[in-house]
Amino acid sequence: MTQTQRRILLARRPEGAPVPEDFRMDEQPVPAPAEGEVLVRTLWLSLDPYMRGRMSDAASYAKATRIGEPMTAECVGEVVESRAEGLAKGDFVVGRGGWQSHFVLPGKDLRKLDPEAAPLSTALGVLGMPGHTAYAGLLAIGQPKAGETVVIGAASGAVGAVAGQIAKIKGCRVVGIAGGAEKCRYVTDELGFDACLDRKEPDLAGRLKEACPDGVDIYVELTGGPVTDAVLPLLNFFARIPVIGTIASYNATAAAEGTDRLPWLLRQTLVKRLTIKGMIVTDYAHMAGDFRRDVAGWIREGRFKYREDVVDGLENAPEAFIGLLEGRNFGKLLVRVARES
Amino acid sequence: MTQTQRRILLARRPEGAPVPEDFRMDEQPVPAPAEGEVLVRTLWLSLDPYMRGRMSDAASYAKATRIGEPMTAECVGEVVESRAEGLAKGDFVVGRGGWQSHFVLPGKDLRKLDPEAAPLSTALGVLGMPGHTAYAGLLAIGQPKAGETVVIGAASGAVGAVAGQIAKIKGCRVVGIAGGAEKCRYVTDELGFDACLDRKEPDLAGRLKEACPDGVDIYVELTGGPVTDAVLPLLNFFARIPVIGTIASYNATAAAEGTDRLPWLLRQTLVKRLTIKGMIVTDYAHMAGDFRRDVAGWIREGRFKYREDVVDGLENAPEAFIGLLEGRNFGKLLVRVARES
Repeated sequence: MTQTQRRILLARRPEGAPVPEDFRMDEQPVPAPAEGEVLVRTLWLSLDPYMRGRMSDAASYAKATRIGEPMTAECVGEVVESRAEGLAKGDFVVGRGGWQSHFVLPGKDLRKLDPEAAPLSTALGVLGMPGHTAYAGLLAIGQPKAGETVVIGAASGAVGAVAGQIAKIKGCRVVGIAGGAEKCRYVTDELGFDACLDRKEPDLAGRLKEACPDGVDIYVELTGGPVTDAVLPLLNFFARIPVIGTIASYNATAAAEGTDRLPWLLRQTLVKRLTIKGMIVTDYAHMAGDFRRDVAGWIREGRFKYREDVVDGLENAPEAFIGLLEGRNFGKLLVRVARES
Repeated sequence: MTQTQRRILLARRPEGAPVPEDFRMDEQPVPAPAEGEVLVRTLWLSLDPYMRGRMSDAASYAKATRIGEPMTAECVGEVVESRAEGLAKGDFVVGRGGWQSHFVLPGKDLRKLDPEAAPLSTALGVLGMPGHTAYAGLLAIGQPKAGETVVIGAASGAVGAVAGQIAKIKGCRVVGIAGGAEKCRYVTDELGFDACLDRKEPDLAGRLKEACPDGVDIYVELTGGPVTDAVLPLLNFFARIPVIGTIASYNATAAAEGTDRLPWLLRQTLVKRLTIKGMIVTDYAHMAGDFRRDVAGWIREGRFKYREDVVDGLENAPEAFIGLLEGRNFGKLLVRVARES
C-alpha cells in the first residue's frame, strides 16, 4: 500500500478563468477507514465543467469547496481496505473521492462496479454522471418525439455526445455544435448526428438556421454564449430547453453590456409557450437504473459510441481542467491517477 | 331587431401605445346567419391585454388582426336568430364575437350560458378565459403546495385575482403587486392575499424581499418589467414561473439597453433548477370543466371574490383598452354593449 496520499487542494478562489496558482498539491499519510468506511485507491478521476462553480463562493446548488480543501470529483478506484459490508479489498467502486490519490468514504456512498460489464472509466462518463445527466435532461425535460429537431451545443463533450445519440435513437434530426472541424467530423461520422457546425467559423446563426429548416424543438443547453444566441431565434412553438450547463459563463466576471434580452426571452417564452427548465443529475436519481440499463444496452448493440480524452497523472489535473473550460478536450476528460494493480 | 351592426375595426397598426386613431368605427347592415350559424346581439365585450398582440403583425401565437377587420374579443350575447342545433332565440351564449354590436358564428363555436347559475358577465372574467388562464397557469405549471410563497403581479386584475385566491385556497402565502394604494387594499382586504405592494412606491425590490422572508416558490408572470425584476432575485430552488403575460412589454418599441441579463437568467435557471414555462389558455382546454366546477363552487361557498370594471357603450372600447394597457382599470374590464332585452 502506498503510504502517501497526494491531494490537489483549492489554493484560492479564481477570478475569471482559473490559473495553475489557484490549485496546490500536498501530501499526507493515507488516512485509515473508520467502521463502515472504505479506503479506496483512485484509478480514474473525472473532470467536469461544474467544478468551476465549486471554486467560487457564489450561491449555487452545492456548497463551495473551502480554501485548503481538496477539489471535488467523481472517481473510480480500487478498494484497499474495507470496513463496510458488501465491499472487499480489490473491488472496484465509483464515488465522490475528490482530486486525491486515495480517499475514504462510507461504504454506502460507493457503488460497486463490474469490471467485466464495461471498462471501469465509463462509470465516469457515458455510464456515469455525464451520461445520466444527458439521459435525464433529454428524456425528462426534452421529451423528444420522432421527427423533431434537436440542437446540442458542446456536441462532442461528455454530456452532449450522449444526449445527441439518444435523440437519434428516438428518431430526431440532431444538429450538433462543436469547436473545430475535427470535433465536427467526429460528431457526424462517429456519433451519427445529422449535422455539426463549427462554432469557431463565422455566421453560426446563419449556418444553424440553414441546418434546421424546420426550426428547433429541443435545445440542450450546455454552453450559453454565442451558441445559445444562435439557437434562441429558431425555437419552435412548444420548444423545450433543458438547461444543463452554461459553460461559456462560468469564467465570466461581469455581465454582458448591450441590449437586455431578458424581457425578450420572457416574451418569447409566452408567445411560443417555451419550457425552460434547469436540472442537475441528482434531481433525477430515480432514473439512474433506467439510464444504465438503456445506455449499456445501446453500447452492447453497437448503437452508441463514446470517446475519452485521457490525461496521465494527478498532478496534471489542474492544467487539464483549465483546458476543459476552454474546450481543449476532445471527448470525456479523465485523469488516469493510477493503473489497476 | 336592430338593423345596424356597429363594429370597431383596426384602422392601422399602433406604434408603441395604441391611440384612438388606431381604431375606426363603422356601421353596416346586420349580417344573416347561414345554415349552422347563429346571429348574436352582444351584451358584454371583454377587453384583455392579449389584444395588443393581435394589433401588431409580429409573429405571435395567433394571427394578427388585419387592417380593416374588427378587433377580436370574447363576448357574451343573446341569440337573435339561430340556424344551429341546440341554440334558440333568447339563449345566452359566449363566444369570440369581436368588437361588434352583433356577430354571426357557427353554433359549435358558442357556449350556452345559464343566466341563473351566475351573472352573465362572469363568463368573460372569473368564470371565463381570464379565470381559466389563472387556474391552468397556477395549477398545471405553478403546482402550488401548502406553505409555499406565491407572488402575483397585476394582483387586482382579471387573471391575478383568480390566481391569488386559488393559491390561498391551496394553503400558500400569497403576495400581490398592484398599481396604487386602493388596489392594494382591495387585494388584501377583499381578496384575502397576505400582502400587496404598490408598484408605484419606491424600492419595490426591497419591500418585496421583506414581504417574502422565505423567498418565492411560484411567480405568476403577468407583467414583465420592474415587477419581474424585483421577483427574479428572490426565487427559491425549484421555483416555477408560469409565463402568462408580459403587459409591461406590449407597447415597447425597442429593447432595453444596459446589462444583458439573459445569460444571468439561464444561469439562475440551472443553479436553482427553475421551471419557466409559457402558456395560453387554449393549451389547457382539457382543464375547462374542472376550472368551471371548482371556481363556481368556491364562489358559491363565499370563498372567492371578483370585481368588474364596467365601461358603457361599444364606442368607448378603444379608450378603455388604452387605459387597460396603462393599468387604469380596477378589476376585470368589460364593455356593456347592450342590456338584456
